[in-house]
Amino acid sequence: MRIAPLILFMLYACTVSSLEVKSWKTSQGSIVMYYNTPEIPMADIRLVFSAGSARDGKRHGLSRMANKLLMEGSGDLNSQQFKNKLSETGAQLYAGSLREMAFINLRTLTDPKYFEPAIGLLISAVSSPHYSRPEVEKAIGDMLIDISLKNESPSQIAQEAIWNQIFKDHPYSNYPGGRESTIANITSSELSKFHASHYVAKNATIAIVGDLTEVRAKILAETISSSLPAGQSPLKIPELTEFIPSNVYIETNSDQTHLRIGSIGISRTDEDYFPMIVGNHILGGGSLVSLLFEEIRNKRGLSYSVYSYFIPTEIKGPFVIGLQTNGEKQNVALAESLKVLRDFIEKGPSVESFNLAKENLISGFINQIDSNQKLIGYISMMGFYQLPLNYLDTFSKKVEEVSIADVRNSFQRRITKDFAIVMVGSKQQELNQNER
Amino acid sequence: MRIAPLILFMLYACTVSSLEVKSWKTSQGSIVMYYNTPEIPMADIRLVFSAGSARDGKRHGLSRMANKLLMEGSGDLNSQQFKNKLSETGAQLYAGSLREMAFINLRTLTDPKYFEPAIGLLISAVSSPHYSRPEVEKAIGDMLIDISLKNESPSQIAQEAIWNQIFKDHPYSNYPGGRESTIANITSSELSKFHASHYVAKNATIAIVGDLTEVRAKILAETISSSLPAGQSPLKIPELTEFIPSNVYIETNSDQTHLRIGSIGISRTDEDYFPMIVGNHILGGGSLVSLLFEEIRNKRGLSYSVYSYFIPTEIKGPFVIGLQTNGEKQNVALAESLKVLRDFIEKGPSVESFNLAKENLISGFINQIDSNQKLIGYISMMGFYQLPLNYLDTFSKKVEEVSIADVRNSFQRRITKDFAIVMVGSKQQELNQNER
Repeated sequence: MRIAPLILFMLYACTVSSLEVKSWKTSQGSIVMYYNTPEIPMADIRLVFSAGSARDGKRHGLSRMANKLLMEGSGDLNSQQFKNKLSETGAQLYAGSLREMAFINLRTLTDPKYFEPAIGLLISAVSSPHYSRPEVEKAIGDMLIDISLKNESPSQIAQEAIWNQIFKDHPYSNYPGGRESTIANITSSELSKFHASHYVAKNATIAIVGDLTEVRAKILAETISSSLPAGQSPLKIPELTEFIPSNVYIETNSDQTHLRIGSIGISRTDEDYFPMIVGNHILGGGSLVSLLFEEIRNKRGLSYSVYSYFIPTEIKGPFVIGLQTNGEKQNVALAESLKVLRDFIEKGPSVESFNLAKENLISGFINQIDSNQKLIGYISMMGFYQLPLNYLDTFSKKVEEVSIADVRNSFQRRITKDFAIVMVGSKQQELNQNER
Repeated sequence: MRIAPLILFMLYACTVSSLEVKSWKTSQGSIVMYYNTPEIPMADIRLVFSAGSARDGKRHGLSRMANKLLMEGSGDLNSQQFKNKLSETGAQLYAGSLREMAFINLRTLTDPKYFEPAIGLLISAVSSPHYSRPEVEKAIGDMLIDISLKNESPSQIAQEAIWNQIFKDHPYSNYPGGRESTIANITSSELSKFHASHYVAKNATIAIVGDLTEVRAKILAETISSSLPAGQSPLKIPELTEFIPSNVYIETNSDQTHLRIGSIGISRTDEDYFPMIVGNHILGGGSLVSLLFEEIRNKRGLSYSVYSYFIPTEIKGPFVIGLQTNGEKQNVALAESLKVLRDFIEKGPSVESFNLAKENLISGFINQIDSNQKLIGYISMMGFYQLPLNYLDTFSKKVEEVSIADVRNSFQRRITKDFAIVMVGSKQQELNQNER
């Protein structure tokens, strides 16, 4: 029973030859990730840059605005002309930026009649955005509204606060949506400067999934890459020098309290990556079965939802437990969650939960790569973090190889004894890490 | 240029033979919709019942709770045992219910080793849920929290309010999440009774998409259908006897005002379906280019977002314009939106916007059916509303055949002169429909 999913997956991997991810560099130094799916005459092309809010410096919101405005006028087209032309192609073009990555994604038919103009628009957007003053003003207005909406959502407030508590002055503390004080005076020339230094070939991962031959993909990647200035590889993000546990209670008028418990987790290329994700699946990552769900919700009725996750990043990213509970129960929920976590770190998982988690991770993995949209996300991530090309093929094997001792040891070595704690609710109080 | 997307799509439809949707009835009278996609060894199986909140009667929330609890204990398994077994299969099982449809969806590998137990769990959930008292109590708690969260979200408040303003005492007014006053005392026996009369073979659409042969799909559908009592087809939902325009202002503490303008729209089998969706795409449905976006946001800077949509249902469903604006601008935003809408109804679309909308709808249609998840939604909808089997193949042709006069005529005949209007904000006032 424990081996079977692996065999099944490997069988699938062998018979479906197109599981092979290919990678090369363009002459300008962009990383290309390519995966052929010939079933539907469409393609996804995603360009990813290390140009998220970790690159904002003191100009919070600059990276997000630079990304948002790619599609609002570029080359010889203003915003409206650009959208009219895009509409004619039937393609979907969307952009996004978080802490590390900023991306733009084109989803288009591969028939040259649509493909060529759609690619032209992608290149125009990414290489020559105008950042015209009227569009910048609209973007400022939109981002200020985004912030006010975020501030109306207790769960989003808690989410941002846990990053701040963990990372403090480190660049990962920067909220991707920026701050009111800095957004309001971002200028066109700042945006152009940010764009010119970050949206460059040496900082680009070009991912291509779809009904394009390798030859066509090579020409395409070369065309895109050569439309960008060569530029420089970005500086590495510094590791967090020291994790300092701390607490914060943020007042809202909600009866529900949102709790986050945070620590330092793993990087994308972490040697403990697989033991940690198996362990987290047991602790609070599994959507059906988890220790936290069983103890906090099922047995004690303390919360509506409870979960845990790692966000693996270039450096070690956050480890977070999250839950939402009635304000009256916030203290008990915190104490019991800490107890479950500390017990898990001390004792490790049960054999039964360990086997169940591995089976579920392996047999469920195909769900993560079963459409072009999911694949483009996966392979662009692989390129961005320079994961091995056989990552998809070996995922199940790596999970299978994790032992119960690996999980316990890695959690004991890696997860801190004290935590960053955030509560957002209407029952302000001193937080206590030490109830057991 | 205008014909090409159609040709392309028809070419695609002809070469990819698997675009053919098949349908039959089981011996117990369930409708089966089947579509073979052999590329990946997975399948989606979705059972849809006419068992949404339109069937709640005065027991608001009953349909949602009956659906939510399908996976919380059934047959000889309690909730935890059920989830452990499901976890072993790697399958994803999820349920949902809105106003008309209630569904349960299984996404599983087709290897019999996983497929057979996963199907067993699907059948157990849909045919013999326990509705045990402890699980009912948890569901009551969850649904009360869902309502309190909804009441913290101005956009969700506006959303519900526009249904109420349009449908008043009609069953479509029933909020799928129920009401606090009724949820708190829903009983196990009520739930079992609702389940026994609605989750029956004659009320079931069984949709199957994936790597299953037609023979295997036939056996599967027969097995599922025969596990349910035959039961009765549900009564038709009555048409709304009369649409009565009305206004409401709902006070919140948000600086942003959420505006909805509503009227009566179209049914899924409406003879004006295609002219109306082409017209709506021009007016406010297009994500890139629309009249409302151009006039309200681009030219006048009145709103953050603005859009319009139809929700086609068994009877004529809602037509809604929505926007979010600064509270200070709410009056102007309302007046200008009404002006754009009334001008559009009076004059119809421009030739340029009309051609652009048709091209975009046709060349973008493939985006709606390019994964198993999207296909299962589409074909189960086709079965539920008894749309023609060639609906997917003829979509582009039907759009192409719409004339500019069809759009103007259908909007003039169908959209009312006065509207249901909802504002949610902090600047309470009398609403005026007649500013022009």
